[in-house]
Amino acid sequence: MIFERIKANGLAHNSYFIGSGNIAAVIDPKRDIQDYLDLAFEHKMKIKYIFETHRNEDYVIGSLELAEANHGDIFHGPGLDWSYGTDLMDGQEFQIGKLSLKAIFTPGHTDESVSYILSDLKFGKVPVMIFSGDTLFVGDTGRVDLYGSAEVQRLADILFDSLFQKILLLGDGIILCPAHGAGSICGVNIADRDQSTLGIERIKNPILQVKDKESFIKYKSSEHPERPPYFSTMEQYNKNGPPRQFIKEKPDLLTPTEFKFEMESGALVIDTSLPSAFGGAHIKGSYSIWLDGLAVFPGWLLPYDKPLLLVLEDQNHLEIATTYLSRIGYDQVTGFLKDGMEGWIDAGYPVEKLSLLSVHQLKEELDRGEDLILLDVRDEDEWKTGHLKGALNIYVGHLQERISELPRNKKIVAFCSVGHRANIGASILLRSGFSEVYNAVGGMLAWRNAGFPVVTG
Amino acid sequence: MIFERIKANGLAHNSYFIGSGNIAAVIDPKRDIQDYLDLAFEHKMKIKYIFETHRNEDYVIGSLELAEANHGDIFHGPGLDWSYGTDLMDGQEFQIGKLSLKAIFTPGHTDESVSYILSDLKFGKVPVMIFSGDTLFVGDTGRVDLYGSAEVQRLADILFDSLFQKILLLGDGIILCPAHGAGSICGVNIADRDQSTLGIERIKNPILQVKDKESFIKYKSSEHPERPPYFSTMEQYNKNGPPRQFIKEKPDLLTPTEFKFEMESGALVIDTSLPSAFGGAHIKGSYSIWLDGLAVFPGWLLPYDKPLLLVLEDQNHLEIATTYLSRIGYDQVTGFLKDGMEGWIDAGYPVEKLSLLSVHQLKEELDRGEDLILLDVRDEDEWKTGHLKGALNIYVGHLQERISELPRNKKIVAFCSVGHRANIGASILLRSGFSEVYNAVGGMLAWRNAGFPVVTG
Amino acid sequence: MIFERIKANGLAHNSYFIGSGNIAAVIDPKRDIQDYLDLAFEHKMKIKYIFETHRNEDYVIGSLELAEANHGDIFHGPGLDWSYGTDLMDGQEFQIGKLSLKAIFTPGHTDESVSYILSDLKFGKVPVMIFSGDTLFVGDTGRVDLYGSAEVQRLADILFDSLFQKILLLGDGIILCPAHGAGSICGVNIADRDQSTLGIERIKNPILQVKDKESFIKYKSSEHPERPPYFSTMEQYNKNGPPRQFIKEKPDLLTPTEFKFEMESGALVIDTSLPSAFGGAHIKGSYSIWLDGLAVFPGWLLPYDKPLLLVLEDQNHLEIATTYLSRIGYDQVTGFLKDGMEGWIDAGYPVEKLSLLSVHQLKEELDRGEDLILLDVRDEDEWKTGHLKGALNIYVGHLQERISELPRNKKIVAFCSVGHRANIGASILLRSGFSEVYNAVGGMLAWRNAGFPVVTG
Amino acid sequence: MIFERIKANGLAHNSYFIGSGNIAAVIDPKRDIQDYLDLAFEHKMKIKYIFETHRNEDYVIGSLELAEANHGDIFHGPGLDWSYGTDLMDGQEFQIGKLSLKAIFTPGHTDESVSYILSDLKFGKVPVMIFSGDTLFVGDTGRVDLYGSAEVQRLADILFDSLFQKILLLGDGIILCPAHGAGSICGVNIADRDQSTLGIERIKNPILQVKDKESFIKYKSSEHPERPPYFSTMEQYNKNGPPRQFIKEKPDLLTPTEFKFEMESGALVIDTSLPSAFGGAHIKGSYSIWLDGLAVFPGWLLPYDKPLLLVLEDQNHLEIATTYLSRIGYDQVTGFLKDGMEGWIDAGYPVEKLSLLSVHQLKEELDRGEDLILLDVRDEDEWKTGHLKGALNIYVGHLQERISELPRNKKIVAFCSVGHRANIGASILLRSGFSEVYNAVGGMLAWRNAGFPVVTG
Repeated sequence: MIFERIKANGLAHNSYFIGSGNIAAVIDPKRDIQDYLDLAFEHKMKIKYIFETHRNEDYVIGSLELAEANHGDIFHGPGLDWSYGTDLMDGQEFQIGKLSLKAIFTPGHTDESVSYILSDLKFGKVPVMIFSGDTLFVGDTGRVDLYGSAEVQRLADILFDSLFQKILLLGDGIILCPAHGAGSICGVNIADRDQSTLGIERIKNPILQVKDKESFIKYKSSEHPERPPYFSTMEQYNKNGPPRQFIKEKPDLLTPTEFKFEMESGALVIDTSLPSAFGGAHIKGSYSIWLDGLAVFPGWLLPYDKPLLLVLEDQNHLEIATTYLSRIGYDQVTGFLKDGMEGWIDAGYPVEKLSLLSVHQLKEELDRGEDLILLDVRDEDEWKTGHLKGALNIYVGHLQERISELPRNKKIVAFCSVGHRANIGASILLRSGFSEVYNAVGGMLAWRNAGFPVVTG
Repeated sequence: MIFERIKANGLAHNSYFIGSGNIAAVIDPKRDIQDYLDLAFEHKMKIKYIFETHRNEDYVIGSLELAEANHGDIFHGPGLDWSYGTDLMDGQEFQIGKLSLKAIFTPGHTDESVSYILSDLKFGKVPVMIFSGDTLFVGDTGRVDLYGSAEVQRLADILFDSLFQKILLLGDGIILCPAHGAGSICGVNIADRDQSTLGIERIKNPILQVKDKESFIKYKSSEHPERPPYFSTMEQYNKNGPPRQFIKEKPDLLTPTEFKFEMESGALVIDTSLPSAFGGAHIKGSYSIWLDGLAVFPGWLLPYDKPLLLVLEDQNHLEIATTYLSRIGYDQVTGFLKDGMEGWIDAGYPVEKLSLLSVHQLKEELDRGEDLILLDVRDEDEWKTGHLKGALNIYVGHLQERISELPRNKKIVAFCSVGHRANIGASILLRSGFSEVYNAVGGMLAWRNAGFPVVTG
Repeated sequence: MIFERIKANGLAHNSYFIGSGNIAAVIDPKRDIQDYLDLAFEHKMKIKYIFETHRNEDYVIGSLELAEANHGDIFHGPGLDWSYGTDLMDGQEFQIGKLSLKAIFTPGHTDESVSYILSDLKFGKVPVMIFSGDTLFVGDTGRVDLYGSAEVQRLADILFDSLFQKILLLGDGIILCPAHGAGSICGVNIADRDQSTLGIERIKNPILQVKDKESFIKYKSSEHPERPPYFSTMEQYNKNGPPRQFIKEKPDLLTPTEFKFEMESGALVIDTSLPSAFGGAHIKGSYSIWLDGLAVFPGWLLPYDKPLLLVLEDQNHLEIATTYLSRIGYDQVTGFLKDGMEGWIDAGYPVEKLSLLSVHQLKEELDRGEDLILLDVRDEDEWKTGHLKGALNIYVGHLQERISELPRNKKIVAFCSVGHRANIGASILLRSGFSEVYNAVGGMLAWRNAGFPVVTG
Repeated sequence: MIFERIKANGLAHNSYFIGSGNIAAVIDPKRDIQDYLDLAFEHKMKIKYIFETHRNEDYVIGSLELAEANHGDIFHGPGLDWSYGTDLMDGQEFQIGKLSLKAIFTPGHTDESVSYILSDLKFGKVPVMIFSGDTLFVGDTGRVDLYGSAEVQRLADILFDSLFQKILLLGDGIILCPAHGAGSICGVNIADRDQSTLGIERIKNPILQVKDKESFIKYKSSEHPERPPYFSTMEQYNKNGPPRQFIKEKPDLLTPTEFKFEMESGALVIDTSLPSAFGGAHIKGSYSIWLDGLAVFPGWLLPYDKPLLLVLEDQNHLEIATTYLSRIGYDQVTGFLKDGMEGWIDAGYPVEKLSLLSVHQLKEELDRGEDLILLDVRDEDEWKTGHLKGALNIYVGHLQERISELPRNKKIVAFCSVGHRANIGASILLRSGFSEVYNAVGGMLAWRNAGFPVVTG
């Protein structure tokens, strides 16, 4: 039996490749499908099935990409007006060599959510693994707010049933294989550990410790995870079939002059440098999004209908940058800057800076009562775990729409957990014409490590 | 948390790399340690601990290789006269970032056998995984015959206690991480699946279904797995510390003339070609061992004190060939033949052949009653599951010592499951001067697929 | 300045990547263009020009593949009814950063043949290199027989002028960069050395030592290199634009049963095993063509309109096998056999053998006057350098069409330089129903190394 | 024939691998010898000879590293008190398969300098290539100042003879293979092109256009290339045999706290970030040397007897950083900082900044007559080609020893060609306690591209 967990970093998305004998199946494939083809080739298998646990809202699914290249048939839960694939029946079974995979309907995260139970037929039909999609994570359960607040109670209600009446009844000894790991915005508190079983979750998953359905619904109703605007695009894509990318051209290498021309013609610029380098020199008007941040944050900030240009710290980041962007549907990267900022500087073009503050400098300024706005761009849940006295909290994803709340005549210091999102925030402010903008690098982590005080509430 | 299972193919050996925060631990490292160093580098961790589950008898352990390069301290169970490492206490705990690892003594496979229980401290001390060494496998338990038949009952007795009084009491939801997978000679019937939990084993592991200790002892006493002679060398190595291989030189590229000279000076030749190619042409006197077979079979056939030479189908197999050999202690590969058998042939040197029989030809010959010895070189357990009528069974590992049982004036057809071990056997016969030797390629698999009859008993 | 020679092995084809500043040019690209894109990316250049030295008849040119992916404009010599690209003027110059490239018409191999002279503008316009296409090779000149025997004299006449009135006049110190190296069928006697200059050729190229044009024409008229039938297809492709392969799907992995079905439905089978393995067992009806032989020999043997199937010694050869085939226009590989011949044998399907003879056995048989036909499948030029007494010479490329010249009731021993082409020949005989076929492996090389006698004439 | 030019980037050092038949030779190997072993393996050759063109003063030669691993015997010119290798005789010849290599004494750069002439024996003994060491480069000749000014005339005199009486007499058509390419400090003006011949050099090499020996000596006497202090160490190493590095341990991964401890215990810190990132945040006291700059500049700045620590922009630069350092003899890198500057910042440790000026800002400041010192750290030859009005020139390599010439109470702006060496200079000033230090990034290149004025003289 072949079992592989394929992690899409940044997104914290897990897909799975399972195989036995001559055939294989993929569960919730990502859009860049070469990994699955390589596994199939290595193990001398043919991908016959593609299983989706649900529509997925946080990335473009790769099912059609695989299916159209003749690598399997697509199956998913019923109830959506799907433009592709085959609807499953509850309890439907598939044989994959000496393995069996059985679909069970586990609605709650969404109505069409399905889990898949894997058995090893050589050992009888005892379940070995469950592929639980966004229904059950390690240390968490799926969010129930995607249909809007009016539906939260209903979804929490049926999620409770899926968990307690279906999944947990399967037995403690079943290995849990969810669709996301720590860092995903599809859960609130997913554990930084991929290995778990239903038995461990039953005992230790905080949300499964509730006494009854009522408490569960209350618990879920109190969660308020962020919902990036790009989710709507993903939902449309994944229901109707996303654009295929059989031929994915690399963006053009652009000389500084060509790059400048494209920018002036309306393309948006993303600079993937880390804060210290972005601070030193960047192109005026560019968004700062660090490399791994490309997996998610463009979905908060960028439209889908404008060409994108990249400024990279290292040209070899091009592949990963475009892959991250394409996973959330941004296929329109048209160019990247030859020799990055050094090329720009050497060409004699002007640059903009963003001043960095160390937490020690920030502390001094705060202590001496300097007149500044300390803008904490972390999300609400992080904010609640502790923040700096006097700080103002606007989540980085909402900063563009709430920018009018900030005064333009004051010094603003962006702040987050380590300084990455703060740099996104600072770049948004600079783009919007704010002039005195700082990033307090190291953020809350450095602040705490330096032994400085934190308040809550 | 980082968790990686590192599989040494051929040996079916599993080692594990676990890490959290800045530090990592390795359990039962193989001798070629670069994989662990690469993981540590990738995850920005320092290996601090090396844990051995027991002395290990089927491969050279890499603990000292790691420790002497300043990558961790070695721990193992007490009771052996170890020349290195630190003895554990039962219940001793180690912290690895946010993980905890606790040693529990689980004797039975050997007296010093230890298992390690991993907990994720972020979720309280509930056990998540158990590293069970050779005590418990997926679908099997460790063998108890290594101390000789006099000790089998005693070891089975304490193994029963380790399994039923210690390990299974930990709870169903614990993920099982044994030291071996399917194909290992350290178990009899290990499952072709790496994923399991104590819950699944409790219900489905055949040997754990026994009613009582008595039945368990009886079951274990009835097993007779093969014990290759090289185990003794491994045991000495792993107790006293094996030779280190900081500098592992590649074997010399030898022209046919140089190769011939080395052969005539006493070096032994291993030809890693598949049977069809070996059959077509090989150097007289060479052992046939297919590439993956190098992981184990040299330990049955070859002395440790003679230089070894390789004939490779593809020069790029050199690395894997020498790695496999070194894992079981053969460090004395001094050369390989330039351009393989084609180089030898083109040099105008004579070759020997080994005739292949298809199962169809074999069937015809048997049907018309041709006077031949059908030599089945599979092991006793395989033989019992079905064999050809009239066949003679000598396990390939015993063929050299039992060769006098075979008549030299008769046609001998070697036979096994697919034809690989039969080719080893055939090459042994040719080396010993037998003249009319055949390999029935495809073996039992092809025989059954062709629909030909099999007998048992 | 960037200069890279990209060799297409097997074909012995050279293409060139040159670059300076921001831009690059490719000369005579092969069809698998990723190498050029990788070089451009690595050196941060944009491919602006694609230069063809002539139509090319021995491989599918990759110019359109590059151009349509927006990597440069195509230029070539005038006089052909090209369906693409731009005709050059004699003496036309291009600037590539600090380099200059100048086209000079050098007809002779073909009428539209062009050479390109590279200068380094930093050092003034002294020529540094010449890209001579098939006009001048290291140690040889291009063949002049492609238009048929009626045109040989005319072409030799103008080739003489191109060489002596144009190229050699450029000066001794110019580095020679031809379109082919040793082993190409576009030359007769190309040196096994890629490094040369016009000065070295002037002194040492055998054919440039002629006294006058008359001798030159006589010399060229006496050459009779083989002309594979696939040249016609290449000529059409390269004039009209070959099929593009933006999306090149890997062939399907086929189980033995699926493979058998495809075969029986009309697909042709190529087995890339070396002779010893093919001899041991192969599928009845398959062509034997060793891996590197795929670069050329399919062009002699295989139609373009039938699906092709592959039997590979190693699955990892798939990429190179399909690349070699596609370079000469075979895009229709639909599948490859899972686990190769071992899979086939294990499935219980029957196999065919091909007996190998060592040269020692062959010598014995010849010495004792055995009644056999020794079929030497080397080409006429090789035959003339020495052959075995009593042998019959039919070039392997002509064997299918001349097969009726061979008696079906006699033992036939195929023979060549080392045994590879002999195996092709033997497989053709087996496919045609000949029953007693042998391959004398090692061929002339082993024969000579064994010290056996050779005759000439 | 196999011919490979192996370039050691940064050093601009060329070594060569040549092979034919079963054997190969390496000319002027670098210390990291794996490239040669890989080539030998790929081409199925055994390295039999190691040829040195001279002692070499700018890098540690890898001859003994190769020879002691049984990969060839070392040969070099006589006249030095070598501790290893064999002295050649003038005209001594070696056969390498079908190639011939002949040593000819070509003193001038140093007294023991040798060139090697390669012939292809298949084409008679006409020379094909010359391996000219530091005697003749593309566009330049070797420096003659290494023995001190007293010897310059004598060396120029014999270099003239080596060039005009020996090398150029060999004929125009010989391909030139020197020991260095553009960017080496072993030449003054080496061309940015590796391809040349004696014919091209005869016509276009500026220094070979002299009328007579007298002019040549005058020309060479007027050159004043920099001579880094590390040359003395290299000379000792290469005469006596450098330390071998069979086991090259990777430096330790250090947490910020461990790193700080090592620093405070006396280790020196090199930060390989580009100026913009170093400017944003660096550890107080660290040297700034960008990654490729590690190939040379440590030799100007760092002692050989102190442990070195690395701060890397990307952990994957570790291999290249330690390789570059070891090529010039720095083997004492003991650690690198986990997560680089981000790790340091997140740990809450204080950082230092270095302000960057764009050339536009610099221009403004100069225009308004701000009181600053514009410190141009380029070398004398660059300075002469044009500089900014009012600038002060101290070569970066001399800055540590001449630092007392600079006032501590003034703003200092470091300046070079693009800003890399200026950053080294700025870091030296910061280490020495200067407080108001700037780097004008983009340097002369940006300045010129921005259209700002330059003066000469």
